[in-house]
Amino acid sequence: MSFQNPVFIPGPTNMPEAVRQACYMPTIDHRSPTFGKILHPCLDGVRKVLKSDSAKIFIFPSTGTGGWETALTNTLNSGDKVLAARNGMFSHRWIDMCQRHGLDVQVVETPWGEGLPADKYEEILKADKNHEIKVVLATHNETATGVKSDISAVRKALDAAGHPAMLFVDGVSSIASMDFRFDEWGVDVAVTGSQKGFMLPAGLAIVGFSEKAVAASQNAGLPRTFFDIKDMQKGYDANAFPYTPPVGLMNGLKLSLDMLLDEGLETVFARHHRIAEGVRKAVSAWGLELCAVSPEVYSDTVSAIRTPEGFNATEIVTHAANKYDVAFGVGLGEVAGKVFRIGHLGSLTDVMMLSGLATAEMCMVDLGLDVKLGSGVAAAQEYYSNNAVDGK
Amino acid sequence: MSFQNPVFIPGPTNMPEAVRQACYMPTIDHRSPTFGKILHPCLDGVRKVLKSDSAKIFIFPSTGTGGWETALTNTLNSGDKVLAARNGMFSHRWIDMCQRHGLDVQVVETPWGEGLPADKYEEILKADKNHEIKVVLATHNETATGVKSDISAVRKALDAAGHPAMLFVDGVSSIASMDFRFDEWGVDVAVTGSQKGFMLPAGLAIVGFSEKAVAASQNAGLPRTFFDIKDMQKGYDANAFPYTPPVGLMNGLKLSLDMLLDEGLETVFARHHRIAEGVRKAVSAWGLELCAVSPEVYSDTVSAIRTPEGFNATEIVTHAANKYDVAFGVGLGEVAGKVFRIGHLGSLTDVMMLSGLATAEMCMVDLGLDVKLGSGVAAAQEYYSNNAVDGK
Amino acid sequence: MSFQNPVFIPGPTNMPEAVRQACYMPTIDHRSPTFGKILHPCLDGVRKVLKSDSAKIFIFPSTGTGGWETALTNTLNSGDKVLAARNGMFSHRWIDMCQRHGLDVQVVETPWGEGLPADKYEEILKADKNHEIKVVLATHNETATGVKSDISAVRKALDAAGHPAMLFVDGVSSIASMDFRFDEWGVDVAVTGSQKGFMLPAGLAIVGFSEKAVAASQNAGLPRTFFDIKDMQKGYDANAFPYTPPVGLMNGLKLSLDMLLDEGLETVFARHHRIAEGVRKAVSAWGLELCAVSPEVYSDTVSAIRTPEGFNATEIVTHAANKYDVAFGVGLGEVAGKVFRIGHLGSLTDVMMLSGLATAEMCMVDLGLDVKLGSGVAAAQEYYSNNAVDGK
Amino acid sequence: MSFQNPVFIPGPTNMPEAVRQACYMPTIDHRSPTFGKILHPCLDGVRKVLKSDSAKIFIFPSTGTGGWETALTNTLNSGDKVLAARNGMFSHRWIDMCQRHGLDVQVVETPWGEGLPADKYEEILKADKNHEIKVVLATHNETATGVKSDISAVRKALDAAGHPAMLFVDGVSSIASMDFRFDEWGVDVAVTGSQKGFMLPAGLAIVGFSEKAVAASQNAGLPRTFFDIKDMQKGYDANAFPYTPPVGLMNGLKLSLDMLLDEGLETVFARHHRIAEGVRKAVSAWGLELCAVSPEVYSDTVSAIRTPEGFNATEIVTHAANKYDVAFGVGLGEVAGKVFRIGHLGSLTDVMMLSGLATAEMCMVDLGLDVKLGSGVAAAQEYYSNNAVDGK
Repeated sequence: MSFQNPVFIPGPTNMPEAVRQACYMPTIDHRSPTFGKILHPCLDGVRKVLKSDSAKIFIFPSTGTGGWETALTNTLNSGDKVLAARNGMFSHRWIDMCQRHGLDVQVVETPWGEGLPADKYEEILKADKNHEIKVVLATHNETATGVKSDISAVRKALDAAGHPAMLFVDGVSSIASMDFRFDEWGVDVAVTGSQKGFMLPAGLAIVGFSEKAVAASQNAGLPRTFFDIKDMQKGYDANAFPYTPPVGLMNGLKLSLDMLLDEGLETVFARHHRIAEGVRKAVSAWGLELCAVSPEVYSDTVSAIRTPEGFNATEIVTHAANKYDVAFGVGLGEVAGKVFRIGHLGSLTDVMMLSGLATAEMCMVDLGLDVKLGSGVAAAQEYYSNNAVDGK
Repeated sequence: MSFQNPVFIPGPTNMPEAVRQACYMPTIDHRSPTFGKILHPCLDGVRKVLKSDSAKIFIFPSTGTGGWETALTNTLNSGDKVLAARNGMFSHRWIDMCQRHGLDVQVVETPWGEGLPADKYEEILKADKNHEIKVVLATHNETATGVKSDISAVRKALDAAGHPAMLFVDGVSSIASMDFRFDEWGVDVAVTGSQKGFMLPAGLAIVGFSEKAVAASQNAGLPRTFFDIKDMQKGYDANAFPYTPPVGLMNGLKLSLDMLLDEGLETVFARHHRIAEGVRKAVSAWGLELCAVSPEVYSDTVSAIRTPEGFNATEIVTHAANKYDVAFGVGLGEVAGKVFRIGHLGSLTDVMMLSGLATAEMCMVDLGLDVKLGSGVAAAQEYYSNNAVDGK
Repeated sequence: MSFQNPVFIPGPTNMPEAVRQACYMPTIDHRSPTFGKILHPCLDGVRKVLKSDSAKIFIFPSTGTGGWETALTNTLNSGDKVLAARNGMFSHRWIDMCQRHGLDVQVVETPWGEGLPADKYEEILKADKNHEIKVVLATHNETATGVKSDISAVRKALDAAGHPAMLFVDGVSSIASMDFRFDEWGVDVAVTGSQKGFMLPAGLAIVGFSEKAVAASQNAGLPRTFFDIKDMQKGYDANAFPYTPPVGLMNGLKLSLDMLLDEGLETVFARHHRIAEGVRKAVSAWGLELCAVSPEVYSDTVSAIRTPEGFNATEIVTHAANKYDVAFGVGLGEVAGKVFRIGHLGSLTDVMMLSGLATAEMCMVDLGLDVKLGSGVAAAQEYYSNNAVDGK
Repeated sequence: MSFQNPVFIPGPTNMPEAVRQACYMPTIDHRSPTFGKILHPCLDGVRKVLKSDSAKIFIFPSTGTGGWETALTNTLNSGDKVLAARNGMFSHRWIDMCQRHGLDVQVVETPWGEGLPADKYEEILKADKNHEIKVVLATHNETATGVKSDISAVRKALDAAGHPAMLFVDGVSSIASMDFRFDEWGVDVAVTGSQKGFMLPAGLAIVGFSEKAVAASQNAGLPRTFFDIKDMQKGYDANAFPYTPPVGLMNGLKLSLDMLLDEGLETVFARHHRIAEGVRKAVSAWGLELCAVSPEVYSDTVSAIRTPEGFNATEIVTHAANKYDVAFGVGLGEVAGKVFRIGHLGSLTDVMMLSGLATAEMCMVDLGLDVKLGSGVAAAQEYYSNNAVDGK
């Protein structure tokens, strides 16, 4: 473990030195007022990142998967109907979780590479005259395919149908890196984790609940204890957790929030867009295509890059690790072997990204793909040079 | 947050510098073989600490509470019968969790300060001719009362009754600090966390499952995804997690296990006993009594100390924090205000303990208790001086 | 190296976590403007700690010994006359350095345990009609004997004699822990290091020069390059060093200065006095005496404690290290074997100090001295309890 | 200070995480045996890196400049004659130091960009029939010009002249990165620092003395105390320093030596050569030339790159810092404004280097130089791809 090269996986991301140091704090008494000075700034800061005035924020020592479970178990009863689209590995997994917890999921199968089908949602919601659908699931950014979906369109579908279903959004690989508008989009539960845009180690499930979602917890019959938001809220009201809180990670989150808000959310989003756009310029210069089918669904946090037919894209990832000690992401599920993924989120600079692109290039050439060394790098350099923000 | 004084709470404990540094590692690709080199030593090491040859070890990014939930949801069905004793806050909470998950708990109310009533267990188990009781819960060390229970006696009760119920043990505040014999005691699920004997930050639920408990998961109908051991095992078989693993914490666990096993488990237990015994000498010199009713149930990881009638023991904790920046534990539940707790587990030396005892003494005198400055310290000094192990 | 117990040596001191982290920064370009943002706050902060408006501050990657050499070589010529008193190991070493550099030192032998003989100085200075004495050396705090001297009295001696000699003060173990008044005392060169009151690792020589001392450097013929203040000043004027600066240590110094100035110098001094006074109460309760002959010379940063005739005081230090893993200081030079030293400076709390006193007590009893366990601790507890400052 | 991008200055270098952590140790008693367990492995390890069996190694809390001063003051008397060549800023500074210390330096002016003129040395040494020249200075690697000199040729010159002068070599930017043969080359004093090949922060002067050089210290009249090797040796013999040692940095050095020797010195040198060669391929692809006049003097640790007439090379460095937050080195002295420097030593990978080259390219294009984006990167990629060592 030499830790010399940056990682280019779609999370966990590279971590700022100061954030790592903040996580690395010695033990304090988590029942003392000191902990409140870590807890409340975290809750307030996450709410700001979600662009919400009133969302209740809950932080669990867990991961995004625990966040999904929090969303479901605190709001639903066994047998409840849920509407979801499957357009990648992570939407698939959330659907799978619903089914394991006894929910009745109406799945809209969607080609991997496309965004959520808001129009299909609208159709289905309109047809659901009895409002049996309790929740609509939406994966904001499919980490498996590098596809960003239009959550406001899903909200419009709900509104057009006059449907009262709650809107649950998986923002694990978008929140804190791409624009997310909890209040404006009428989101009821937003789910994320610590190890992506927040630039922390994995270990925190971070969720926001609307008033409506909190209210739903009164009648939610799915069993839960660890992920119970009522216990958690009661804890927060006393500057505490219902069990031992992950103090160091939360201390890191507090700092990470300060850094993000100091930089300015729009600046953070623009930075992610700029770095992503450079990657896309490189992909284009290589003569390759993204898994994401069209520019409006291009993700600013991860690019899944299709390799030519007959080539096993996973080899790039293995080769990069073995020969250059650089980490990229493999394709998952339906696109396993067909794509490799470059993560470009979290603590990253244009300069770091260029070393990732240079490495991907070397790997592709090493493995016999028809790519010209320096070609993608040059395309990205040109873009970065023209769009760089001074003073970084 | 000056971090100058050690903490004397019953976990999270003081952390060794090297362990903190190991936790604080930069990001690696958790899907690379490197992660396997962290994961498997953790599983093997925990198994050794449990004194088991064959237990399946599972580590979740969670806490001990999540470990409890893992135990229940992977082995039981709604309505299943569970036998448990309530003799403190933590046994109470596990019972409460059972009830929330729809289990039918037969509770043996037991005075706080006493150990588990193995004889009552035996009686009940013998009476349960139809073997409706599926699981017996046992809290090895009640952190709220400083009471250690005899798990081998519970095993004997099961055996004497010829009862096939599984034995689930909460070892959160005992494992890695006090002797624990998974195989010898016929434990089916053992639960612990990272922030006690393992001297790490909170953030890991660590559980061991017997073959029987693993088999029970085939028919366990309680809904679960995040805490599903089948998914987890499948992940481990591929050097992975079913979601993003807490790599840094596990890297810390790997080192902590090396340190514990290098020191030798019996030496670790003897160290905890020696430090605890010094605390008990001090308590006696102060003219006070432990909440634990008799020496055979004295815990080597935490002492709950009764203060005189009419005195609010919590004031000692508040005063120590405010005036001396030292953390002790308050009384919880039934013994709130009646006891204060001194944690003496994890990374601790006789010398550190003496500063905790000196502080407790000053607090008691400051608050008007009839205690002589230096009295408890002297009693502990004498014990430590006579029992110290050179070179530590 | 377990790093569990605090150290009780008279420097290097225990370091605050945040200061260590600041030292531990990744590499930056030391020729970039970023370095200026570390350098100048360090120079300004040290000047404030010295209570000077105009002293020129120089920081070398070295130690206090290098600071002494900086003082001499930048101001003097071979054969120049220097007046000094020898009352401990550190004043002895500075005298020895003068002699090695060809200076003519008039040494006033002074009993170890006494302060500087200002009256003798006055007598000698008055007799030096031709003003051949160029520099008067004064060790503010003799770390070997725990003796603080009255520098204002030395200034008065110079003034009374109407003598133009420069006043050089070794403040290695006093500055930033005890009151130091560069301007008021008319100090010409003050010397200190990073590893005492500044709570940093060893590695910085920190010196302050008066205008007069800076002017003397014009004609100072002693050869020097590494320690040349002219080169250093030229560097500072360009935000640089004449060679590679110790960036991390200086980043730590910047933070340490912020912490000291935020706490308030007088509060820092009072804290050192309080902790020292507790140690002295303990010494008295043990029936022992300090090496320092009278209260007005008691040092607030280190106590040298005389043990009974026939007892080798060094055994306490060895025994404490071997049996309890606690570090005290041995006696040096004339008082080797006659005293052991307790350092009580830097990042320390009353509570930490009590564990040091408890350890010293155990060692003395272990080694057969007639000391009662708990006696010194109780005396210190009483003092700390009565004098503690809330809110730490 | 974001610390995201690597630095590309010719030292201080990027530091391995583990080395930084080793430096960052808490305080220990530097007079305890524990310190010996850090000290002696450092001395032994440095000796191995120097490829010497018998050199006496001395480590001072200082920098390379202090190492030069150690070399001179411990071996020479005022007025002694020294032979040196000036072919860059660092050889110039050592000459300047000699003169300040009263030595009589015969300077061979040598074009910046050329190596040491061993033939001229031989001529002069042969002419020095009375052996008045006491020391020959040789800068192994001129950091200012990126020029490596042939030290074995200098030795041959001495031998051919049958001259007994000692050979002092500045290996600050070569030792631990490029082959250095203390014994084979008959070096008498070798000087280096911590912040280059040893991958540590600045703060240690590291020197090796031959028996002959140690013997010379008996009669060396130049005044010294801080840098006195006799005091230092006496300290080492007692596991100590004559003053407070820089324990943390030495703990880091101990680890860095382990890492270098585990990797294997020849592998370390080959790695530096490979990375350097990639840089040189890029320079060539840019149509630029090195300051170093011919391949046999190309340095494997730093490249000074000449920019076209009329262009201020320093602008590249400023622009890289301001726009891309990347640090390169400016030209110094005679080549100020004519070259910019890329450091490629210490903890560095091919991948990191590519991001440096990509940045340099963007800067040159931004500033109007006729360089093609991607051109240098592609040349380096090709070289690295063909020469990479798997698994790094």
